[in-house]
Amino acid sequence: MSQIIEDLKWRYATKKYDSSKKISESDLDILKNVLTLVPTSNGLQPFKFLIVENPELREKLREKSYNQSQITDSSHLLVMCAFKNIDSDFVENYLTLNSNHRNVPMENLAGFRNHLHRTVVAKSEDEILDANSKQVYIALGHLLHAAAQMRIDASPMEGFDADGYDEILALSEKNLHATVVCALGYRSEEDAYQFQKKVRKSQEDLFEVI
Amino acid sequence: MSQIIEDLKWRYATKKYDSSKKISESDLDILKNVLTLVPTSNGLQPFKFLIVENPELREKLREKSYNQSQITDSSHLLVMCAFKNIDSDFVENYLTLNSNHRNVPMENLAGFRNHLHRTVVAKSEDEILDANSKQVYIALGHLLHAAAQMRIDASPMEGFDADGYDEILALSEKNLHATVVCALGYRSEEDAYQFQKKVRKSQEDLFEVI
Repeated sequence: MSQIIEDLKWRYATKKYDSSKKISESDLDILKNVLTLVPTSNGLQPFKFLIVENPELREKLREKSYNQSQITDSSHLLVMCAFKNIDSDFVENYLTLNSNHRNVPMENLAGFRNHLHRTVVAKSEDEILDANSKQVYIALGHLLHAAAQMRIDASPMEGFDADGYDEILALSEKNLHATVVCALGYRSEEDAYQFQKKVRKSQEDLFEVI
Repeated sequence: MSQIIEDLKWRYATKKYDSSKKISESDLDILKNVLTLVPTSNGLQPFKFLIVENPELREKLREKSYNQSQITDSSHLLVMCAFKNIDSDFVENYLTLNSNHRNVPMENLAGFRNHLHRTVVAKSEDEILDANSKQVYIALGHLLHAAAQMRIDASPMEGFDADGYDEILALSEKNLHATVVCALGYRSEEDAYQFQKKVRKSQEDLFEVI
């Protein structure tokens, strides 16, 4: 069996963590590098990742997450946020980054600026948040894949009160919205879910060749 | 450097493919396996992947994709679709799959059925499509990651007329919507983009520890 498939079969949505086991700084650094390298629409990286360490904050977030234990018991809690809006300033910052990284004069990026204004900035805030949220999910896909490769357990979680999160973490004033949460760490031996058989559709159901 | 990081640094959004190079059946099978194993909300896998081989169809889709050459010149073109709606039948099919895979009697899944009706089926079609589209992006993240590991080039593409795709591929009548497109294959040596430096925000910009 391919190593990739073996990795993905190893993972499952962990329900109970062994809270005594912590992700090492070097492994965490790899995961941060993965999230940094995630490709995004127009390269805008319209997201920010909060790593919540404060135990009191994690208790508060757990209350907004149907009391799920992963929020407090995992090694690391990642709140994956999308930018609510992309305005001219955001675009200028990005173009400056682009100019610096690639050593291209800003005036050569005028066409790209126009493109970004026409196709991104001109959209409604709802449309922008929606598009940005999807980029967060690309990041989630990469994160889950990399964590599995590294035998780090993960729980992608959508079952939480996003507005409650925004309030507790003061996200709105930072132009951010909590899109999805990912707990990371090491499974408890007692977590019965790790022994459940995966339920997946057949390739005949999922693919169509035309 | 970690192999994972090396893989992700190797990839880029390929603009020009070497149309003479084709992905082997065994490699394609691994990618299909990856897409099958992608985790989704409630395990519903609310997506379908069309592999477009027909050259005339690919020409037509290229017209709806700003004439981007990846649509016709890549080895494989994947149209990643979300289900537009999730109704009782969808849920029953999923519960049956669950029951069969895990050898659990259907009556034991009554609580799960209620949960899915309350939290998924009860939503508006727009909300369901939005939630399903995000799951497609988790799949995209896994696909891009796996392709990079396998040194298969990929181009995630949002620049296409989704309604045009829906019409050409008769998606609406299958309860599907074209969410994102991914061309797969092997880069042309002439593609200058492969030599461009990646533009990425710093970790200080992307992460906040609280």
